Amino acid sequence: MKQLKIIKIGGGIIDDAVSLAHFLQLFARVEGPRILVHGGGKGASEMLRALGLAPKLVNGRRITDAPTLDVVTMFYAGKTNKAIVAGLQQNHVNALGLSGADGNVIRAVKRPVREIDYGFVGDVKPAGVNAKLLGALLELGLTPVICAITHDGQGQLLNTNADTVAATVAVAMSQQFAVELHYCFEKNGVLLDVNDDNSVIDNINLASYAELKEAGIIADGMIPKLDNSFDALGQGVHKVIIGHALKINDSLKTVLCLN
Amino acid sequence: MKQLKIIKIGGGIIDDAVSLAHFLQLFARVEGPRILVHGGGKGASEMLRALGLAPKLVNGRRITDAPTLDVVTMFYAGKTNKAIVAGLQQNHVNALGLSGADGNVIRAVKRPVREIDYGFVGDVKPAGVNAKLLGALLELGLTPVICAITHDGQGQLLNTNADTVAATVAVAMSQQFAVELHYCFEKNGVLLDVNDDNSVIDNINLASYAELKEAGIIADGMIPKLDNSFDALGQGVHKVIIGHALKINDSLKTVLCLN
Repeated sequence: MKQLKIIKIGGGIIDDAVSLAHFLQLFARVEGPRILVHGGGKGASEMLRALGLAPKLVNGRRITDAPTLDVVTMFYAGKTNKAIVAGLQQNHVNALGLSGADGNVIRAVKRPVREIDYGFVGDVKPAGVNAKLLGALLELGLTPVICAITHDGQGQLLNTNADTVAATVAVAMSQQFAVELHYCFEKNGVLLDVNDDNSVIDNINLASYAELKEAGIIADGMIPKLDNSFDALGQGVHKVIIGHALKINDSLKTVLCLN
Repeated sequence: MKQLKIIKIGGGIIDDAVSLAHFLQLFARVEGPRILVHGGGKGASEMLRALGLAPKLVNGRRITDAPTLDVVTMFYAGKTNKAIVAGLQQNHVNALGLSGADGNVIRAVKRPVREIDYGFVGDVKPAGVNAKLLGALLELGLTPVICAITHDGQGQLLNTNADTVAATVAVAMSQQFAVELHYCFEKNGVLLDVNDDNSVIDNINLASYAELKEAGIIADGMIPKLDNSFDALGQGVHKVIIGHALKINDSLKTVLCLN
């Protein structure tokens, strides 16, 4: 089976033009077919404030009302996506930017209203990913650059969690490829000691993950990230790799596998 | 030779959500391979003002400085392009939004500074169009939706005239297809009497165009539009059609041919 790398970057790297340019140079050296998935950054929040649209939070979760959706669409699909695509072209990578609406690449469902009405937020499943088209675009030598704006097929765009988009695309592409899903952030990997960036755990499998949680070594914000990663592995993703965005070609990283 | 329709819409139709939705329904009924090219609308100017960025004009021409480029990129490649793509998906058209950077579809040259420094404005030539990739995307059953943001291949995005983008793409695609270039606006076509919207001139060729200019029937803003159209015809475009955006499937229109 052919390899495919799906690499997800977040706000930390996107907010800093110098870091982003460095990352794009490193990304250009990643071999073989690859897809880049990006989140937003602080820019969208700053623009919302500049336009007098205060970020709306309920229980700490952002609510995407219509004016907020407009701004995040402009920011993620317009500014950030096109900056990344132009930067990759400069590095001789034939990048093609996509929202979920483009080529019907990711069809989502507006999150049902229960205790909280999240507004125009989309939930995604692997069946909603147009894996056939993504495969055809890769076959043309293109590198898809996906932002976390999806659509419902009825003309409505939806704001979607970028980690989830990356994992869902990874699961969907696992029918055609041996997929490595890379989550890039500002640490070198999953750490034994959160205060020591050199204490990277090289490998975690389901059994050792249970032990690390039991021992309180993996806690807080890391748990949902790793739960989602093992969930993706359970659905056919070959490997999940967690590491620093500016060290994607280094061996320093945490590799997650089921066994 | 296979037919290809390249349809350009401008501000008038984009600024009004009801008209745009109507246009997209009509566009969905256009048969055969097609490409949609769109300009901006008033929205970008409104957002520039809301952000305290006054539109900068020199001799009536807009200057695209760096903050202005950011906003027009967000607006054209983000908001407008994704609204059109999601609306076409709703109408069962597998639309794929593109800036010129995406897939290196349109590489431009930053306009050289002479009397006026236009800022980040791109000039395009047919040789800068990736006609091979556009052909491959059409072959996959996709409908490219192109906004008028291009790139220079060195990481710089550039604001570009949408009429020129449409004509340049039309010329470049004429090597593979018999191209019909449709310019949609708010009139029924080229009019014998500007005050009578029913006085559409059915056909204009190079000879009759010279006569109509001589007689003062075609004047002012229409002249550069028609000059550019005949220029495209001279470079291999099969037909140029000028008509109303909400009547694209009707026979009421002006057809331009060389002979």
